[in-house]
Amino acid sequence: MMTHFRIGAAMALALVATAGYAQTDPNAVAQIPTTAFKPVATATSPDKSLVVTIAFDNDGRPTYAVARKGKAILNPGKLGVMFTDAPKIERNLELIGKSTDSSDSSWTQPFGEWKTIRDRHNELTLRFREKAGLKREMDVVFRIFDDGIGFRYNFPDQPNLHQANISDELTEFAFAQNGTAWWKPAYQWNREEYLYNKTSLDAVSTAQTVMTVKLADGTHAALHEAALVDYAAMNLARSEGNTLKASLTPGAGAPKVTRMAPFASPWRTVILSDDAPGLYMSHLELNLNEPNKLGDVSWIKPAKFVGVWWNMIKGDWSWATGPIHGATTANVKKYIDFAAANRIPGVLVEGWNVGWDGDWFGNGNAMQFDQPTPDFDAAELYRYARAKGVHLVGHNETGGSASHYDSQLDRAFSYARDHGIPVVKTGYVTDAGQIERVDADGTKKREWHEGQWMVNHYLRVVQTAAKYKVGIDSHEPVKDTGLRRTYPNWLAREGGRGMEYNSWPGKNPPNHEANMFFTQWLGGPMDFTPGVLSLEGQGGSAILSTEAKQLALYVVIYSPVQMAADTPENYAKHMNAFQFIRDVPVDWSETRVLNGEVGEYVTVARKDRAGDDWYLGSITNEEPRTLNVALDFLDAGRSYTAEVYRDGAGADYRTSARHSIAIEKRVVKKGDTLSLALAPGGGQAIRFAATGQARRR
Amino acid sequence: MMTHFRIGAAMALALVATAGYAQTDPNAVAQIPTTAFKPVATATSPDKSLVVTIAFDNDGRPTYAVARKGKAILNPGKLGVMFTDAPKIERNLELIGKSTDSSDSSWTQPFGEWKTIRDRHNELTLRFREKAGLKREMDVVFRIFDDGIGFRYNFPDQPNLHQANISDELTEFAFAQNGTAWWKPAYQWNREEYLYNKTSLDAVSTAQTVMTVKLADGTHAALHEAALVDYAAMNLARSEGNTLKASLTPGAGAPKVTRMAPFASPWRTVILSDDAPGLYMSHLELNLNEPNKLGDVSWIKPAKFVGVWWNMIKGDWSWATGPIHGATTANVKKYIDFAAANRIPGVLVEGWNVGWDGDWFGNGNAMQFDQPTPDFDAAELYRYARAKGVHLVGHNETGGSASHYDSQLDRAFSYARDHGIPVVKTGYVTDAGQIERVDADGTKKREWHEGQWMVNHYLRVVQTAAKYKVGIDSHEPVKDTGLRRTYPNWLAREGGRGMEYNSWPGKNPPNHEANMFFTQWLGGPMDFTPGVLSLEGQGGSAILSTEAKQLALYVVIYSPVQMAADTPENYAKHMNAFQFIRDVPVDWSETRVLNGEVGEYVTVARKDRAGDDWYLGSITNEEPRTLNVALDFLDAGRSYTAEVYRDGAGADYRTSARHSIAIEKRVVKKGDTLSLALAPGGGQAIRFAATGQARRR
Repeated sequence: MMTHFRIGAAMALALVATAGYAQTDPNAVAQIPTTAFKPVATATSPDKSLVVTIAFDNDGRPTYAVARKGKAILNPGKLGVMFTDAPKIERNLELIGKSTDSSDSSWTQPFGEWKTIRDRHNELTLRFREKAGLKREMDVVFRIFDDGIGFRYNFPDQPNLHQANISDELTEFAFAQNGTAWWKPAYQWNREEYLYNKTSLDAVSTAQTVMTVKLADGTHAALHEAALVDYAAMNLARSEGNTLKASLTPGAGAPKVTRMAPFASPWRTVILSDDAPGLYMSHLELNLNEPNKLGDVSWIKPAKFVGVWWNMIKGDWSWATGPIHGATTANVKKYIDFAAANRIPGVLVEGWNVGWDGDWFGNGNAMQFDQPTPDFDAAELYRYARAKGVHLVGHNETGGSASHYDSQLDRAFSYARDHGIPVVKTGYVTDAGQIERVDADGTKKREWHEGQWMVNHYLRVVQTAAKYKVGIDSHEPVKDTGLRRTYPNWLAREGGRGMEYNSWPGKNPPNHEANMFFTQWLGGPMDFTPGVLSLEGQGGSAILSTEAKQLALYVVIYSPVQMAADTPENYAKHMNAFQFIRDVPVDWSETRVLNGEVGEYVTVARKDRAGDDWYLGSITNEEPRTLNVALDFLDAGRSYTAEVYRDGAGADYRTSARHSIAIEKRVVKKGDTLSLALAPGGGQAIRFAATGQARRR
Repeated sequence: MMTHFRIGAAMALALVATAGYAQTDPNAVAQIPTTAFKPVATATSPDKSLVVTIAFDNDGRPTYAVARKGKAILNPGKLGVMFTDAPKIERNLELIGKSTDSSDSSWTQPFGEWKTIRDRHNELTLRFREKAGLKREMDVVFRIFDDGIGFRYNFPDQPNLHQANISDELTEFAFAQNGTAWWKPAYQWNREEYLYNKTSLDAVSTAQTVMTVKLADGTHAALHEAALVDYAAMNLARSEGNTLKASLTPGAGAPKVTRMAPFASPWRTVILSDDAPGLYMSHLELNLNEPNKLGDVSWIKPAKFVGVWWNMIKGDWSWATGPIHGATTANVKKYIDFAAANRIPGVLVEGWNVGWDGDWFGNGNAMQFDQPTPDFDAAELYRYARAKGVHLVGHNETGGSASHYDSQLDRAFSYARDHGIPVVKTGYVTDAGQIERVDADGTKKREWHEGQWMVNHYLRVVQTAAKYKVGIDSHEPVKDTGLRRTYPNWLAREGGRGMEYNSWPGKNPPNHEANMFFTQWLGGPMDFTPGVLSLEGQGGSAILSTEAKQLALYVVIYSPVQMAADTPENYAKHMNAFQFIRDVPVDWSETRVLNGEVGEYVTVARKDRAGDDWYLGSITNEEPRTLNVALDFLDAGRSYTAEVYRDGAGADYRTSARHSIAIEKRVVKKGDTLSLALAPGGGQAIRFAATGQARRR
């Protein structure tokens, strides 16, 4: 029985009079035409192309809708929150306050893809209150940019909402059109490391964000969140048709989120663009994060690195001590020599510390983050590296034992500081939902990588590291929601299928990077570890890429800590191509996405922040293609020597010709057009060396 | 970083030797061919058509696969459970015990669709143990029938698994083929009352069960569960492709399930058939429930009823007191007179008790389940009804305040007993996830209708009612998993879109019942409340059905408490058709599904358990069709007078001709063939009156 609430507004009002009912049809939303929504507020983007309309349905449920260039993009979607211990805030609300604001300012990234970021938006804040019952109040704050929107919930402290125990959010994203979606599933065993699905939007199950959609009319949309702090990460569960609903990551048998009011949710974000490149060019995510809270961050030095790693991934060396232990003093010195000889500042060493022996997967309680193994001479390596102008990159693998790591954070980062280690790569290798949390009373719990407790843990690690002037490169992390603006020492993350997958069976397919660029990489820098020029994984198995594509990835992928992942021995066989890896910087003053389609191809141009050189990277999927690019991005009035690393004769990721690479130089200037011929699974990398400028490195 | 676990079994074994690793690729399942699964056990159905194969993957994860008639139906799917406070049981398991059993027995339903139920199956019990770490043990018990399988987890009490706090199940259903799925979404605001989606299997989001699938090769499958007791209801979340994963209904910020070992999960069931009718003919669900625990249940009397209801649903009367209050002594007497005059045993009265005045939606704390309103003379109506050989059907609407109802159960059911009320209709009208639970210490929590706490509440109500010899008809219930076998006084449930939806905007479409029959109704009896012969809802709006279809529903729908939902005034205008409602029984000795396609049409024949008459109901969706049915089900050697109620000239659910009905008689016998002409949105009802037998009623 549904009660006659479902009889629609008019009848219900009649009944209010006659029979004292206050509510209308709980089903109404699903049934009545949009015209039955009562608009109460609208806001537009600075350029007026986006219009957000807030309306009530017949049950007093606030909804929001988004139109772009006069076309409906999002139909009215619900807003609200459910609690474990109180009625949800959703129905029977009234609008009791409305305020607007606008901003047009610029700020500087200490390092990044762009030096200057413009933040131009209009803001609309709505305060809703329950008409009856608990009369709780909830704000919804919208920020409307020319290239998308963000909105968040804001809960003032109030007698009937002091501690919020949130069971889930009711937020909907009700696309007005079907389309094609690129997404990876949520709540599976693996920690975010999936290939992206390409399905019809109305065939999505439950997706992680970033999820990217190309709508029927060609509009591109990216759904994500910004400033994920002290809250559970949001996933997207499709309810029906093209409507997705927020699904917060669970906690260990607790409310998904517990907060004391006042507090705000993360921003729910929708980037909108005419094309795929426009998604990447948006600054919306960074603009919705708080400014730098660390003060002077000049101690953070973006840098490339090599390391004791690929041999373990291939299975030739081990993390554990024993006959094939990788992190020996002798091995590390070889890497230091190689780094120094090639002007690569960093050397990562994995498996250097006590705790790897035995079954550490999902159990890192033996890990000691300041105790090297006997065959790793920390003092000597510190001395040796410093003498050669190289630093070590630290590595703290927790095996998912997050509380155990918490108990050693100060030891771990003071060890790093005392050994000249400016950045530490962390790891949480355990199945999803299997992070070990141990409370003060000794109670053990199992948490998800993206639940509220872990969201707080990852940030705790970053904040503690900052005290010691150490940067963090999180692997098996929570997704990136732009917090590097607020905590610049959160340098990069993994959280996706990186190069390692090219060592094992089930290698990354040629379209992988073109998928990642327009999905996960919209969230922030990824430590993908490109540059395996040997193009060989475990047992000599072939990587599905050309050699030139490996070089192109250094421009396509943004990361302030970019690895040259192959071994010195392998690079020695490819020194001509390796020259590009030596030259390419990791910090940029300008970035332009020149072309691209999700999962097909992309071409990116970036300008060295430390000089006048420009760099270009272009990659394709399994399809060969020729892309003509206008060099309009080059500075006017000067010439450049284009050092071109392109797929050579017959290059093809399916054959040994994957190594076919042509390297040539030509002089170009702004306004010229280049034709980029990309092989199957191929790519092209170009350094535009500003003439008259000395090679910096 | 994924660690090199992903390098496959062979390599991993090598590394076990060299570097002390015990695990292989966590990604292996997704990547390696099925041949990499190591089979450890198989079991077949009694007729050998079904084969279940249990195999380990490279990580020691047990999987199960199902083949039917030599074709793969389910690929290897994972088994296991996650906990909030301990590592999941999934990986690194070994098989330490195996036992088999088989059974071929019959039992009798005290009332139902069939008198005799055959239970023929083979059983395979496997005991798994973790090779390392906690070394926990878990049994998986498979029962293989000729028409499907059930399996459940069994957790023996053990030092490392004494109290189980389950965060979710890992159970997968990995269909080997794509197909068409009929499903309704889970975790939405509404309490199970949705139209069924028809989508490609690989476009399901998160579905409630019963979910029905027609695979590419024509095989029909129904996914559900049996014997849901002291556990959270299972939903199905599609992970990728055609693979669905168990998703247990949440608790109020607690583990989804908390149990003390030893305990068993509900049975996860997959009914398999060549065609849709075969799904309904399966007894698998009932056979996987425990036998009757109530002893003598002769006091349970299946019966039709009319009631003070449709006028409220239409909005002409109110539940609350006031000028249009429905449950007045005078109104109820009219219904009693009508029931008595038409040999209908029961009269439902809603809105008879204190607590309806004011806003009770989601708040039933004012409800008093033994206190009639002043204008409802309980004693007089009890006397009046009994004098006319009629009983009242009780009604307890909780507004979702389940704990408040708990506190009054004995009062409620002693009131029922003392007023000759043999069955009570309960209600839980509040949004999903908004059931109010109040713990002993006064803590308030918000529960889901299908969470563990409510699963226990619903059963507590049924068990308490049984003490007073009262039956329960649960509305806004937990789904039916066959518990009526164990607790026969759990007569019926709603839990779907019943007749009430035909009063309001967004009426049930003509395919609705043909969807329900092959989905939700596979789970058990629904109190659908058919028989609105006026074919009019609120404000005179037209119901999308012909008059003959309304009659057919009394045979198509099984329920021991079947309502004649229309008003006496309306029936008075359709007495010719109403004769069928007077005649049709609610208890059967035999049931046959003669034909049917999900969402299109179905024809059902049932034999009166109290006599020799057979009844037939046939319904179609919006499409007109002619169905030829052989009367092979009739008893041999005797003739029957077929009293046919068929769509008349021009009958059409879209026009006023929806009332066009033809009633005629003809003599038939076993072996004859009848041609059933069904109009758009139409149906046909037939009583086969065994000649020489007196009309019973």
